[in-house]
Amino acid sequence: MATAGSDNIMSRFLNRKYETLEPYTPGEQPKVLDLIKLNTNENPYGPSPEVLKVINEEEVGRLQLYSDPEAAELVEAIAENFGVSREQVAVGNGSDEILAFCFMAFQPENGKVYFPDPSYGFYKVYGDVFKADRHPVPLNGNLEIVPEDYKNLDGTIIIANPNAPTGIALETGVIEEIIKSNPDNLVIIDEAYVDFGAKSCVPFIDKYDNILVIQTFSKSRSLAGSRVGFALGNKELIADINRIKFSFNPYNLDRLAIRAAAAAMRDDAYFQMTRRQIMETREYTVREMEALGFEVLPSKANFIFARNSRIAGKDYFEGLREKNILVRYFGKKPIEDYVRITIGKREDMEALLSATKELLERQ
Amino acid sequence: MATAGSDNIMSRFLNRKYETLEPYTPGEQPKVLDLIKLNTNENPYGPSPEVLKVINEEEVGRLQLYSDPEAAELVEAIAENFGVSREQVAVGNGSDEILAFCFMAFQPENGKVYFPDPSYGFYKVYGDVFKADRHPVPLNGNLEIVPEDYKNLDGTIIIANPNAPTGIALETGVIEEIIKSNPDNLVIIDEAYVDFGAKSCVPFIDKYDNILVIQTFSKSRSLAGSRVGFALGNKELIADINRIKFSFNPYNLDRLAIRAAAAAMRDDAYFQMTRRQIMETREYTVREMEALGFEVLPSKANFIFARNSRIAGKDYFEGLREKNILVRYFGKKPIEDYVRITIGKREDMEALLSATKELLERQ
Repeated sequence: MATAGSDNIMSRFLNRKYETLEPYTPGEQPKVLDLIKLNTNENPYGPSPEVLKVINEEEVGRLQLYSDPEAAELVEAIAENFGVSREQVAVGNGSDEILAFCFMAFQPENGKVYFPDPSYGFYKVYGDVFKADRHPVPLNGNLEIVPEDYKNLDGTIIIANPNAPTGIALETGVIEEIIKSNPDNLVIIDEAYVDFGAKSCVPFIDKYDNILVIQTFSKSRSLAGSRVGFALGNKELIADINRIKFSFNPYNLDRLAIRAAAAAMRDDAYFQMTRRQIMETREYTVREMEALGFEVLPSKANFIFARNSRIAGKDYFEGLREKNILVRYFGKKPIEDYVRITIGKREDMEALLSATKELLERQ
Repeated sequence: MATAGSDNIMSRFLNRKYETLEPYTPGEQPKVLDLIKLNTNENPYGPSPEVLKVINEEEVGRLQLYSDPEAAELVEAIAENFGVSREQVAVGNGSDEILAFCFMAFQPENGKVYFPDPSYGFYKVYGDVFKADRHPVPLNGNLEIVPEDYKNLDGTIIIANPNAPTGIALETGVIEEIIKSNPDNLVIIDEAYVDFGAKSCVPFIDKYDNILVIQTFSKSRSLAGSRVGFALGNKELIADINRIKFSFNPYNLDRLAIRAAAAAMRDDAYFQMTRRQIMETREYTVREMEALGFEVLPSKANFIFARNSRIAGKDYFEGLREKNILVRYFGKKPIEDYVRITIGKREDMEALLSATKELLERQ
């Protein structure tokens, strides 16, 4: 099947403004399951046992009924977890949809939007879709975000914290300075990976009216397959997002996704156990990779970003692929030497390390 | 919890163009389950037993993995069912999302869009969101679409067939004339209710390059709670929709929704049995309602639209509500005398008829 964007088929009815639109390229989702899949930052642990309890035959047998467009059960579970009010929570069909709704709600056409480069590739695509004036802000030579670059700007600011694909996190105090120096700009902090060692900016949502925090169930909550993301902010910003949601796709979350995500959010013990395990495995992997001569960026995410002068990024990626290990390679400057490796279970990383040793010996 | 649109909370960051946007008002989704719910055109029969088979513990236990952004299993099941190629099928998070993507892809800002009035309320909202020049085309005195009104136009055309909330269907030959007389306009036929007695326009997608057919799993496939809709058209139009999807929310369908919908689509026997049962119950209900003095529009949908000079639409709606029967009342001209009643199981309709008799006796 043709992937969108892999060719240039279009109809004579397509809006002219989208003729050159380049869609986001998702990480490969192989149909076979016997690969070691370390390419899309999925959690190596399955969903909470509580999720398995709530998605039962009785619940599936009610799928002829619409889902709750307010997703009240889920909004309540999220609000309770973060100690915020329900009016401070908006939910979406993945954090991608929440980001898209934010662009619709807050990004004026031709208005400026600033985001790190490299970062999550979708920020550029959204800028393109919504005809924003995109300002990618280059990372420094160490692939770090330079906080000063985001002070006193004149447009929307989006920062992934930790950043992707580097895994490097900013201190929340540094982000607070960015928020304070941009009182007339909306600052969106994308915390997709925050639960693996960074600090969250959620406490700022009661203090500042120009910050939105976006999180997802896809990484630390083991529910990438349920497509649930959420935004936390003051109630006016949340009302804006919901205004778009209810004008675009009110029933954006299905019955099973709402139930699964609510159950996952309430199971804090499982969440704590699995994220700690992933952080431990990450530290182990970093040590071993460094012992093999890799330079590994200091990651607070469930992935590492690494390079080795003994093997080109592309060769390493392709070599692993031949050994049935999938990692992510971006192949563009300034990160063309690096590969991004998701932290799996300990045994996945042992397999990665052993394959890596073999590849290095061949060089 | 505040419903979006129920108040006018907004932030100072909201795009000015959305300040007056009025979101769609979904039918009430009560949290209690002991009501007779005939207000949102849900199927009274549960999902196919095949759906219960595929949403099993093993499948739920894989929810940490992303869904297939191509939704290949589902696209294939749909293509096979309709005898079209996979490149002629686009899937979305409900037909609402598909419609939203169509507006994004095909509706130029300030370009004209024509749709019947009354019809599905979301066409107006999408026109508003995407800043189209909206041209609602009034129905005639019998609440019918007048085909001549749609000939030789100068903008996008959207027709629900059967129309909502009337249930009245157009012959496909009549729609073909509309398509032929609008060679430079896209004609979107929304077939949400087509499986209850009307004919589909899908055969036209190979013949004309200006028609898109939209269908849903929410009604005849008993999966409103899974949020799956799809578009059928020539491969260029489908590529356009996917270009938007992959630039907005590539993983718009979750793992369980893909599996459930594919299983439902493959179970043709269950589909045929349940839709026939609903049509039979509809004919029974119409006869009984007419015997009670109701005027019932000729419905080819899983609902009927009815009025009775002995009781005002609003009083009938509220009277039923007191008896724990939910129907839909729109309360606006020219349909303020009517209520829309979803066809449930035979016993639901018997309860409705008996409640109706009591209410009429009170008048």
